[in-house]
Amino acid sequence: MRPINWEDGVLKLVDQTRLPLKLVWVSCTGYREVEQAIKNMIVRGAPAIGVSAAYGMAMGAREIETGDKVEFFSRLKEIADVLKATRPTAVNLFWAVDRMMEKAEMLREEPTERIKEELVREAVKIDDEDIATNKAIGKYGNTLVKNGSRILTHCNAGALATSDYGTALGVIREAHYSGKEISVYADETRPFLQGARLTAWELAHEGIPATLICDNMAGYVMKLGKVDMVIVGADRITANGDAANKIGTYTVAVLAKEHGIPFYVAAPFSTVDLSLKTGDEIRIEERNPQEITHINGIRVAPEGIDVFNPAFDVTPNQYVTAIITEKGVIYPPYHKNLGKV
Amino acid sequence: MRPINWEDGVLKLVDQTRLPLKLVWVSCTGYREVEQAIKNMIVRGAPAIGVSAAYGMAMGAREIETGDKVEFFSRLKEIADVLKATRPTAVNLFWAVDRMMEKAEMLREEPTERIKEELVREAVKIDDEDIATNKAIGKYGNTLVKNGSRILTHCNAGALATSDYGTALGVIREAHYSGKEISVYADETRPFLQGARLTAWELAHEGIPATLICDNMAGYVMKLGKVDMVIVGADRITANGDAANKIGTYTVAVLAKEHGIPFYVAAPFSTVDLSLKTGDEIRIEERNPQEITHINGIRVAPEGIDVFNPAFDVTPNQYVTAIITEKGVIYPPYHKNLGKV
Repeated sequence: MRPINWEDGVLKLVDQTRLPLKLVWVSCTGYREVEQAIKNMIVRGAPAIGVSAAYGMAMGAREIETGDKVEFFSRLKEIADVLKATRPTAVNLFWAVDRMMEKAEMLREEPTERIKEELVREAVKIDDEDIATNKAIGKYGNTLVKNGSRILTHCNAGALATSDYGTALGVIREAHYSGKEISVYADETRPFLQGARLTAWELAHEGIPATLICDNMAGYVMKLGKVDMVIVGADRITANGDAANKIGTYTVAVLAKEHGIPFYVAAPFSTVDLSLKTGDEIRIEERNPQEITHINGIRVAPEGIDVFNPAFDVTPNQYVTAIITEKGVIYPPYHKNLGKV
Repeated sequence: MRPINWEDGVLKLVDQTRLPLKLVWVSCTGYREVEQAIKNMIVRGAPAIGVSAAYGMAMGAREIETGDKVEFFSRLKEIADVLKATRPTAVNLFWAVDRMMEKAEMLREEPTERIKEELVREAVKIDDEDIATNKAIGKYGNTLVKNGSRILTHCNAGALATSDYGTALGVIREAHYSGKEISVYADETRPFLQGARLTAWELAHEGIPATLICDNMAGYVMKLGKVDMVIVGADRITANGDAANKIGTYTVAVLAKEHGIPFYVAAPFSTVDLSLKTGDEIRIEERNPQEITHINGIRVAPEGIDVFNPAFDVTPNQYVTAIITEKGVIYPPYHKNLGKV
């Protein structure tokens, strides 16, 4: 399931706001459409946002009509800024846009047509690399999974959150296809229901045994002794190993610690942001209150109630048993071991 | 706001499945309608279920047409069993039905018409007592609330869950009306959204400052230092102080412990079940998976996904800072102090 398809210069995205009821593809023909697709969460998941933004850069470059190099680079920088302003928390977005910008800079002496072609190639490369990365994460992560393991995950760090295969779900897929009898508890993940809509959909489609629960049931399920490990994705990991991920992840981490359950973060190295010392420096996006007060367009909460809707939280490193990357499993102390890789 | 009204022999209930969008009253003219109203959560909340069941007993007695005393009591026992079978976890239901049954037994020598009249009187008494109880809980609980306190609550332990005023929200009301500048975080409480629909509605109506969050945000809000205390209700408290309450309460308790935040349970003494030693003996109701897979009648999760939908969980006594009752604030060790009252 590749949720991001590049076809004849058009970026086709699975509309993740419509799943699981409908599998609808949205076509982006210019970078402004990519901008909207990221903002409106048609595409979501840190790696998938990064890949989409890379294509957005390639499309934006193609839209610049000047032959003047200074103007070309000035416009490209503006496009980069537009794409970077779509969402603040996941670092893969900035990483991918910066990588595209650097690629262009390296080719500064070349004709703009050549730069445009190379930017498309670079975006495709980022896309393909992401799949290889996830498969490597899956292989390393699978060494931590025992036969019979019951794994709890939060949000969707699956194929839909990446170019394919997934990070946390990449580990789960690898364990399943390597013949281990695993099963999954999927938190529904309010307010956007990525767990109920996307993770449940991926797992049900592939016949991986999975049980959907509400977020507030995770503690009870752990207390019943039904969870052997937790695996989640990440949107940004700082130099000390603090991990920003979908809101609710921190709550799951605290619960895992209380029950002595290992808590793993699975993410590509592009999620690691060594420029930030701790998670306190990560900007946490707040989204529209209507995501909470309305469901399927129908109001559920009364008028006049205040709402707090942070899209992410930060799990401090002391709750993270290990970080599973494409370069191997990284253990504490993270401030030493993340820098070494 | 009295959600339960007894008018000319008809039990009128606020339909809590329709709030906050519509304030609809449902009329029950016989005990079978009360049975359905409890089963379908038209009325919910441990004390409100107890009061409704008491009226159900009075209505059931009225429906028995025999003058034969043995047959009358045999039928009344059947009605008690029907009402007790509506929901398994909240003990107030059993407490209220048993109290009604005992009242009838005390009047065994009287004519059945007299018994029927007295049962109506007893139900009204249970109803009125519940309000007095909640006001006492509010007064005792308010001694624990500091000016400026930011209080997190889960589910709805409000006027709607009782005859009026509420238990956890009774404490919050008392603190507010006594002039303390308090504010509330209300967990939305999936899957039934009692927090978003009912607690938010009660607080918004009375102008008590309140912020609605998703259940999975509680940990992050605590980590941000925005919560000074937690107050929740209870559906059953065992002899050792373990407290069954709406699913997700245990998760909140673990989070409170992790952040050094006091965690209070507010409940009438009728919620204490000294016949059970620990919470392990409490039967936890599991409800229809559709409560999770569908929202507002619209499917959100894919076909073929398994679902676990426990309606309650048990918070072990070591997480409970104190239990606020109408007889005072009770501190650990609960196995000693609950029995003493």
